[in-house]
Amino acid sequence: MLRNLTGSTRLLGIVGDPVAQVLAPPIWTPLFQSNDIDAVCVPMHVQPKDLAAFLKGAGVIRNLDGLIVTVPYKPIVANLVDKPTERASLAGSVNVMRWEQDGSTSGDILDGVGFVNGLAARGKDVKGRRALVVGCGGVGSAMAFALATAGVDSVSVADIEPTRALTLATRLTSKGFNANVAPPVAAGFDLIANGTPMGMKEDDPLPLDCTGLSPATIVCDAVMHPVETPLLKLAAAAGCFVQPGTYLLDYQLQLMAQFFGFDVEIELPQAQRYAV
Amino acid sequence: MLRNLTGSTRLLGIVGDPVAQVLAPPIWTPLFQSNDIDAVCVPMHVQPKDLAAFLKGAGVIRNLDGLIVTVPYKPIVANLVDKPTERASLAGSVNVMRWEQDGSTSGDILDGVGFVNGLAARGKDVKGRRALVVGCGGVGSAMAFALATAGVDSVSVADIEPTRALTLATRLTSKGFNANVAPPVAAGFDLIANGTPMGMKEDDPLPLDCTGLSPATIVCDAVMHPVETPLLKLAAAAGCFVQPGTYLLDYQLQLMAQFFGFDVEIELPQAQRYAV
Repeated sequence: MLRNLTGSTRLLGIVGDPVAQVLAPPIWTPLFQSNDIDAVCVPMHVQPKDLAAFLKGAGVIRNLDGLIVTVPYKPIVANLVDKPTERASLAGSVNVMRWEQDGSTSGDILDGVGFVNGLAARGKDVKGRRALVVGCGGVGSAMAFALATAGVDSVSVADIEPTRALTLATRLTSKGFNANVAPPVAAGFDLIANGTPMGMKEDDPLPLDCTGLSPATIVCDAVMHPVETPLLKLAAAAGCFVQPGTYLLDYQLQLMAQFFGFDVEIELPQAQRYAV
Repeated sequence: MLRNLTGSTRLLGIVGDPVAQVLAPPIWTPLFQSNDIDAVCVPMHVQPKDLAAFLKGAGVIRNLDGLIVTVPYKPIVANLVDKPTERASLAGSVNVMRWEQDGSTSGDILDGVGFVNGLAARGKDVKGRRALVVGCGGVGSAMAFALATAGVDSVSVADIEPTRALTLATRLTSKGFNANVAPPVAAGFDLIANGTPMGMKEDDPLPLDCTGLSPATIVCDAVMHPVETPLLKLAAAAGCFVQPGTYLLDYQLQLMAQFFGFDVEIELPQAQRYAV
């Protein structure tokens, strides 16, 4: 299916712990090759105690064009890169980083943009909606800031750790957005986004109480494995418009390519082909 | 041709400067896949000033099974690894390294073994021969020690830098081998090995003066690009038995697999398919 590797093959890494579940290697590697780029996307499994040493070492591999950053490193790398974009600083999270000519590091967060752009591409405008984001980690924060920036009426945030929710709500408010902390209950919201990992495992509980879920509500998930989470199944059965996590990934692929400097054409969907 | 990469793909790196010319990625990647191992061999281009930081970073990538080490890092890495094998210490050169469970590093040099095993597999015993090795860098040193260990009558060594030749001859002698420094002239030897890069470029001079080359002499090259170097062409025309550098690589592949812990079956030849 793929062309063979060579001594000139360029690398795009994806760093995480664990990393076995990521979709970037199977998505990017064929994209590079179908665009005549001699490059592969490779997983790099690094433990938290080793992250600093890893990043120093990765930065000197001349044929490494950058890193996709995944769990649990998004907030950590946001603090480590020299030049985060404004939205990365806002979200306190980075999911792509690269090394500049002068050796400095840049980072951006594209999760939230992908999530909102995915909805827009499917004809769903988030403007004026009352949004609830459940889970205030890297991807939840990115979704919350992307929704706020895209003009929702309000962003309520919920987390199993109340201080994490409060921290995110405070940061949103300090940037002039209408935000607050709410319990994880669907009633009263017309846009719900799950930024927790709940739904990846078969026996996970729902990330929120879906009592009172209205069919007018858009329900989105950041989980990609499985594509149809129990939350999305329940929401679809209730008549809601639903968006799996694969859209969040698909609609940031072109932005990732720009960030890393790859001249590739990306036909969508991609992520769903590799998610199971 | 190849299967796609995944989040679980393991890595075998090859570090060098330059690295574009290496054959390890196209050889190893299909070998892994035909043996049902989800792994790829990727080039890692690192500059000398960055080697130490690179090795620290590489050592913490959990899915990196080790590194093949190529020019100019073989002697440098021989000094850096915690546990070189005896032959690596002898040759002062390492071409494979790995990280042990306790975080320490091991290294071995398989170039010389591959070179001698290649000859043996083709029915050529080196015992009792008067050998001349031209070029006393990493691969030349490894060839010289492998020949000495395999029982040649004597090893003469030549290098464009006389001190390098003298250093190697002294080390051979100190280990009880019959060695000396000689000018790069073929006459009087019945085994000649080129360990210099001469022959890689079209307008390279021959690595030694071939006046007096006897048809009974075995002539070997460490150069793999091109497979038929001017030296080997000349020797073949003179009636000599010749061995291209691709054999040196082929006959160390199984040893490399053992070193890195890969359970692969390797059918030979491999290297010649990728060398041009």
